[in-house]
Amino acid sequence: MPRAARRRTETAETLAQRQREISVSEFFLKNRHLLGFDSPRRALLTAVKEAVDNSLDACEEAGILPEVSVDLEHIAPTRFRMTVTDNGPGIVRAQVPKIFAKLLYGSKFHRLRMARGQQGIGISAAGMYGQLTTGRATEIISRTSRSRPAHRMDVLLDTRANRPILLREEECDWRPEFPDPDRPGESVVYDHGTAVTIELEAAYVRGRLSVDEFLQQCAIANPHAQIHVRIRLKPRDEAAGEDEASSANAATADVGSSSPAASEVATPPDAAAWRSFRRAVEQMPEPPAEILPHPHGVELGMLMQILKDTSSRTLRSALATEFSRVSDRTALEICQRAGLDPAARPARIAHNDAETLYRAIQDTKLMRPPTDCLAPIGEAAIVAGLQKEVRADFVTAVSRPPAVYRGNPFLIEAGLACWRPGEQEGDGAAADDPVRLLRFANRVPLLYQAGACALSRAVISVNWKTYGLAQPKGALPIGPVVLLIHIASVWVPFTSESKDAVAAYPEILREATFALQECGRRLAQFLGRRRREEEARRKREYIETYIPHLAHGLAAILGLSDRAQADLSARLSKLLARSRADA
Amino acid sequence: MPRAARRRTETAETLAQRQREISVSEFFLKNRHLLGFDSPRRALLTAVKEAVDNSLDACEEAGILPEVSVDLEHIAPTRFRMTVTDNGPGIVRAQVPKIFAKLLYGSKFHRLRMARGQQGIGISAAGMYGQLTTGRATEIISRTSRSRPAHRMDVLLDTRANRPILLREEECDWRPEFPDPDRPGESVVYDHGTAVTIELEAAYVRGRLSVDEFLQQCAIANPHAQIHVRIRLKPRDEAAGEDEASSANAATADVGSSSPAASEVATPPDAAAWRSFRRAVEQMPEPPAEILPHPHGVELGMLMQILKDTSSRTLRSALATEFSRVSDRTALEICQRAGLDPAARPARIAHNDAETLYRAIQDTKLMRPPTDCLAPIGEAAIVAGLQKEVRADFVTAVSRPPAVYRGNPFLIEAGLACWRPGEQEGDGAAADDPVRLLRFANRVPLLYQAGACALSRAVISVNWKTYGLAQPKGALPIGPVVLLIHIASVWVPFTSESKDAVAAYPEILREATFALQECGRRLAQFLGRRRREEEARRKREYIETYIPHLAHGLAAILGLSDRAQADLSARLSKLLARSRADA
Repeated sequence: MPRAARRRTETAETLAQRQREISVSEFFLKNRHLLGFDSPRRALLTAVKEAVDNSLDACEEAGILPEVSVDLEHIAPTRFRMTVTDNGPGIVRAQVPKIFAKLLYGSKFHRLRMARGQQGIGISAAGMYGQLTTGRATEIISRTSRSRPAHRMDVLLDTRANRPILLREEECDWRPEFPDPDRPGESVVYDHGTAVTIELEAAYVRGRLSVDEFLQQCAIANPHAQIHVRIRLKPRDEAAGEDEASSANAATADVGSSSPAASEVATPPDAAAWRSFRRAVEQMPEPPAEILPHPHGVELGMLMQILKDTSSRTLRSALATEFSRVSDRTALEICQRAGLDPAARPARIAHNDAETLYRAIQDTKLMRPPTDCLAPIGEAAIVAGLQKEVRADFVTAVSRPPAVYRGNPFLIEAGLACWRPGEQEGDGAAADDPVRLLRFANRVPLLYQAGACALSRAVISVNWKTYGLAQPKGALPIGPVVLLIHIASVWVPFTSESKDAVAAYPEILREATFALQECGRRLAQFLGRRRREEEARRKREYIETYIPHLAHGLAAILGLSDRAQADLSARLSKLLARSRADA
Repeated sequence: MPRAARRRTETAETLAQRQREISVSEFFLKNRHLLGFDSPRRALLTAVKEAVDNSLDACEEAGILPEVSVDLEHIAPTRFRMTVTDNGPGIVRAQVPKIFAKLLYGSKFHRLRMARGQQGIGISAAGMYGQLTTGRATEIISRTSRSRPAHRMDVLLDTRANRPILLREEECDWRPEFPDPDRPGESVVYDHGTAVTIELEAAYVRGRLSVDEFLQQCAIANPHAQIHVRIRLKPRDEAAGEDEASSANAATADVGSSSPAASEVATPPDAAAWRSFRRAVEQMPEPPAEILPHPHGVELGMLMQILKDTSSRTLRSALATEFSRVSDRTALEICQRAGLDPAARPARIAHNDAETLYRAIQDTKLMRPPTDCLAPIGEAAIVAGLQKEVRADFVTAVSRPPAVYRGNPFLIEAGLACWRPGEQEGDGAAADDPVRLLRFANRVPLLYQAGACALSRAVISVNWKTYGLAQPKGALPIGPVVLLIHIASVWVPFTSESKDAVAAYPEILREATFALQECGRRLAQFLGRRRREEEARRKREYIETYIPHLAHGLAAILGLSDRAQADLSARLSKLLARSRADA
């Protein structure tokens, strides 16, 4: 018998009345830290990142060498207006509202192909955050070709329904325009492109985790892109109320990062001037191919869904057309192994038969997924990027062959640059500073949540002492080194919607470790060679200092002439050089 | 003029054709690591956690002392059938499909009230993962009262549409039944309750991060609940193919945790027997109240939405009825400060006026949010829970007063238990093991992603050396100590949908640090007292050993009688005792 007495009158019926649907935008509005909008500082970076990612993706899909500008204007103590412009193919009018004001809408989710965006959340989330904090609509202006006019639209997101509200729409004569780095003050104009403007509560902070750092790393991983940036800050006195306002203003958490030093805050860079990261390569990266799912990465439930949805009329042809690496012959083999009729209607496969089929697929040897869906940065480009970035003595890079996690092809690249301590100007690194780690996923720099990222974990897991770097237990190695690590995949498994850290699938950890170890071995060789050379030089310098004195002493003892003494000195030097050569 | 040549024929028009809506279930299916379903081992834990959370929430809402059973049956090498049964109020028939087979549907998202569940994702996600990996439907059986029959339903989730598919529905005579821990072999039966059964690809691993650990910690934080568990594993030989199958089987990543030691895997516990965590308290916790949003935690966009949606007819009454801590008089004050007519229609407030209103609200002094929406575990219950858990020499607990982040009230509690090294049986802790940290959010144990959690970060940030514990730099302190830390809030800001780690809002970090420091101070006092006592005892024992020898020597020198010698010895002991008392 029930022993518990009821104390309140809530019943199944009263509880049922509270049940309600939650729209995905309501969910993310309340959980906006999941999207990277938890503090004003991070919000600015996230908004820029989402817009730039979209611009680069659009340009590459259309085979256009990307040109992107980021314009940030400080319009109120805690408020910025961000405009990101590209020379991409533009967006057709009908798609604009949904792309910019509906979460979970996009072209990249339903296919297996390497891209920066994959979720269909980012730019709408940035607009939603802007709307939440400033009440302002997102403004989009886009032109698809010289022969058509541009259209300008203002859209809001109806968060209750996750639906765009179109506030304004008009045709105009806009064309995207970028500063020309070769001819200061002049512009380059294109016939097509898109510009998006969002007003949002934000804070600009220089240095680590800044928009500048993001764009600089973007330029390293995308040498084919030309990126311009202009940050117009309010003068200090105008922004006086800033600290106060932003701390009163609810959302100032700086999740997943240490807070900036006070001195970093709001130091205006060269005001109102465009700075450009120039294009270093005039060639587009190889466009990645789209692939079908690999049978070994498909779960039973997904297999059942695919069989239900296929337009193929037989099981055999369904297997061959819906999956990669399944030839017509392999499809027949799978059917036979499962004891199923190859001519069966796929939609009619019963649950038990699907399980048998699933096991037969697992038991069939198949080629690994195709890898032309991945576009690595490439060893040469990584070396060039790092050389541009640091005045290094030694630079190396490794591109691993493609591997697979959960059926998804991926590929790891690593780069390493090292310099002589004290030689890096403006770096200000102390002798016991950890290495600087640059993480990238599908060419996008990852700045936040380093601690939660599989790429960082791989760096920590390598024993860097073997390669000549100090390393505290469970921490990054120490030394004047920049490490770069890049994962390229058709589906990067991020640990959250803000896409800052990669989930620790064992296959990813393993590949990253291999790439880093190879860089480490090359570093050890270089450091060993440098150490030997330095020792030899030191020895030579030391002895060379004393040879004349030695010769002088011997001359006094043996009563040698000046000439004999000079001769002795020369012979001693020669002897020394020989013994060094032998060593 | 454009310098870039197009290489491919993708245009704005062809790109537009690819744009598609993504259902929230498709999104989470592909990103299931965000929900805690990335490895078979974690999947089992997550499924149990979601079901138990729901059961405890339902019981408490209805004022029923919770009784919950978790039954895990190992039905195939990599497959488990999980059944979680409760004595809650039951679920009305019409709500069952949506509650168990639609993501983002629930009763807890749209209100500010402390609860375990808050997102409306968990249990549907568990069913969706089961369906993905085994193709099986979720089975629910529920009864709302003695006077009505139970209903049994099988539901699948249509992931394309995020919509339930009802496969079967029938009435039956089921009543929830639990093992009676006082009378082995007999049962306790209730008139109402719910049972949910999910088949899923899973792996059972004992020890750290196991279902057992979760339930044990659940019992500590919920002493009013009675929890039963039965885990029926296949014998080892039957499960022989397990390792092979699970590694072939795509999803074996163990994200965010170290992999289990080989020896831990699949050791069957006492087979087929129910184990019970008994109820320790016969009283329900105070039911938390539901609150309105606090004006200082509401952003401009949200304020505009609230004004648009309110049923109040004047601005003044809207402010007073839609927010907490705004009296009619305060509402008037806000209107005056903003220069707005208190009788204005709320929906007619223009954008600029809304901004003025927003600033006026920020500038108005308001009481902090009410805190009866929080139900702390309480210092006494934490101490009792820890004493049950460890044979400690010293136990203490601290409940902090409520605080606020982003307008949401929250409260931190911390507990600490310490024992003498080597005295904890079965613990096997080495001398340099870090403390054991138990994290809880709204009484739910958090097992994964400790590294990403603000509660862990707070523990690390405290300088434990001050309190007598060793602590490596940037790491947990070391010693025979269990630390417990609990955050209770109307909205816990988790770092991901799997709800394993708390986001690092500065207010949360600060409160957690204060609570831990107070525990630390008490620990230091205890350790100091114990050290002084031990030193005194050692000194006494040492001297007591030598007093007879001393007396003997003096007797020989002074030629004392035996009696005088005994007398001297006694006096020396007394002297010693006095000097100790003075010290």
